[in-house]
Amino acid sequence: MFFIIGIGLGDPKDITVKGLEIVKRCDRVYLEAYTSILSCGQESLEDFYGRKLILADREMIEQHTDEIFVDAEVKDVAVLVVGDPFGATTHTDLMLRAKEREIPCQVVHNASIMNAVACCGLQLYSFGETISIPYWTETWKPDSFFGKILKNRHMGLHTLCLLDIRVREPTLESLTRKTRQYEPPRFMSVAEASQQLMEIIKNTPGELSGDSLAIGLARVGHDSQKIIACSLKEMTEVDLGAPLHSLVIPAKELHPLEVEFIQQFSSRKL
Amino acid sequence: MFFIIGIGLGDPKDITVKGLEIVKRCDRVYLEAYTSILSCGQESLEDFYGRKLILADREMIEQHTDEIFVDAEVKDVAVLVVGDPFGATTHTDLMLRAKEREIPCQVVHNASIMNAVACCGLQLYSFGETISIPYWTETWKPDSFFGKILKNRHMGLHTLCLLDIRVREPTLESLTRKTRQYEPPRFMSVAEASQQLMEIIKNTPGELSGDSLAIGLARVGHDSQKIIACSLKEMTEVDLGAPLHSLVIPAKELHPLEVEFIQQFSSRKL
Repeated sequence: MFFIIGIGLGDPKDITVKGLEIVKRCDRVYLEAYTSILSCGQESLEDFYGRKLILADREMIEQHTDEIFVDAEVKDVAVLVVGDPFGATTHTDLMLRAKEREIPCQVVHNASIMNAVACCGLQLYSFGETISIPYWTETWKPDSFFGKILKNRHMGLHTLCLLDIRVREPTLESLTRKTRQYEPPRFMSVAEASQQLMEIIKNTPGELSGDSLAIGLARVGHDSQKIIACSLKEMTEVDLGAPLHSLVIPAKELHPLEVEFIQQFSSRKL
Repeated sequence: MFFIIGIGLGDPKDITVKGLEIVKRCDRVYLEAYTSILSCGQESLEDFYGRKLILADREMIEQHTDEIFVDAEVKDVAVLVVGDPFGATTHTDLMLRAKEREIPCQVVHNASIMNAVACCGLQLYSFGETISIPYWTETWKPDSFFGKILKNRHMGLHTLCLLDIRVREPTLESLTRKTRQYEPPRFMSVAEASQQLMEIIKNTPGELSGDSLAIGLARVGHDSQKIIACSLKEMTEVDLGAPLHSLVIPAKELHPLEVEFIQQFSSRKL
């Protein structure tokens, strides 16, 4: 049997009881470690689960899938993913590859930023399309996500912005070499995301401005969770500390209950 | 300390390890039982947790909040909710009421249909606003949700339709009496929801028709989970069995990976 198990928001104890039982009895357990950053570290997971985990990087998940599926018809094999199993296309694809091989699959769901984001006080059903903000480079500054934020806002919907993370990205120089070298892992902060948004706004002034409300979230679900509500311009200088960060651009009109809840994260009267 | 703990999709073992530890050590634990239907029953939860739960119905949650908060400054009190704590306005409100009383709060996240719906193969970030389809009566047939489905579709987004549940609804006759009587609990099936949608379409023909693709989901995350993909018209006759049901109206254009995944739930070539 092949299992994909969501381990939730990152604390070892965020796994469900069902998930933990499966992890303990599996023959092999992989930890998918490139679509998200595991804030607690592999070791603390291994300590808590009482077993070894096999780190599955991008190459293994995308190119050496066969290795993961070895004997999965007769043995129990699990892949652990941060958040929920269906949070990233990668995992949906992994399930399809298992089905092709006629390996029975089971999914264990968990919380992900896609539903936990509602802890900022915005109603989850009023979120529109989720967008991703990628790191810009000197020569590559895509901004198509900005139009989606505006569309959501136009429909009275909030936008969750997932911020770029770079784990095991090959360096440009090493791409042509046999031995890959990797850039140090990095993650986009709410300040960096807001700076990129401010740069887009500078060139396309309109409904969204530096004075618009933004909500920054860090380490959602952890004891050190931080949420701040301020203007987008102010957010460019906010330091929310360690990863992962997410940014929310709320709709223009908020429900009174939303305002009351968000007020606790703002130093100013909303 | 006041805890709101998501118990996930309904199986007793869907609670997280963190949540279970808190449940075991709390002085009082309430089970919120009106914004969702607990498919496994209170008793099997009590058996698994090894403790008694206090059933908190609508009246207690909305009108007798004081009772829940008694001694919560010095004792540990938890409210368990199906799904994630921020899935319903009710729970957000409960947190605000706790903060008013200066009672420290902690939230334990979990999966909810709002993120687990992606198990049908549609990418979660491509969902638009979530809508609720209420039970119609002879005299009350609201259809404002229909416009939102069309708007989502127009933007290339999927729509998750949450289907009505009625738990401890006072009967009309008893509303004027001292002693309330309650209607038997009921839940809307994907067939009933599709029938109501077909009736709206009959009066407002347009982009959505009986031939449009619909996806019906039942008991997501359970061993008995069922998913079916067919036309909306066909869905009016589909029986997916026991609750809870959800209906998804996909965007017109699907990603090839979405099509490949949904194909397994359809008897016809998509």
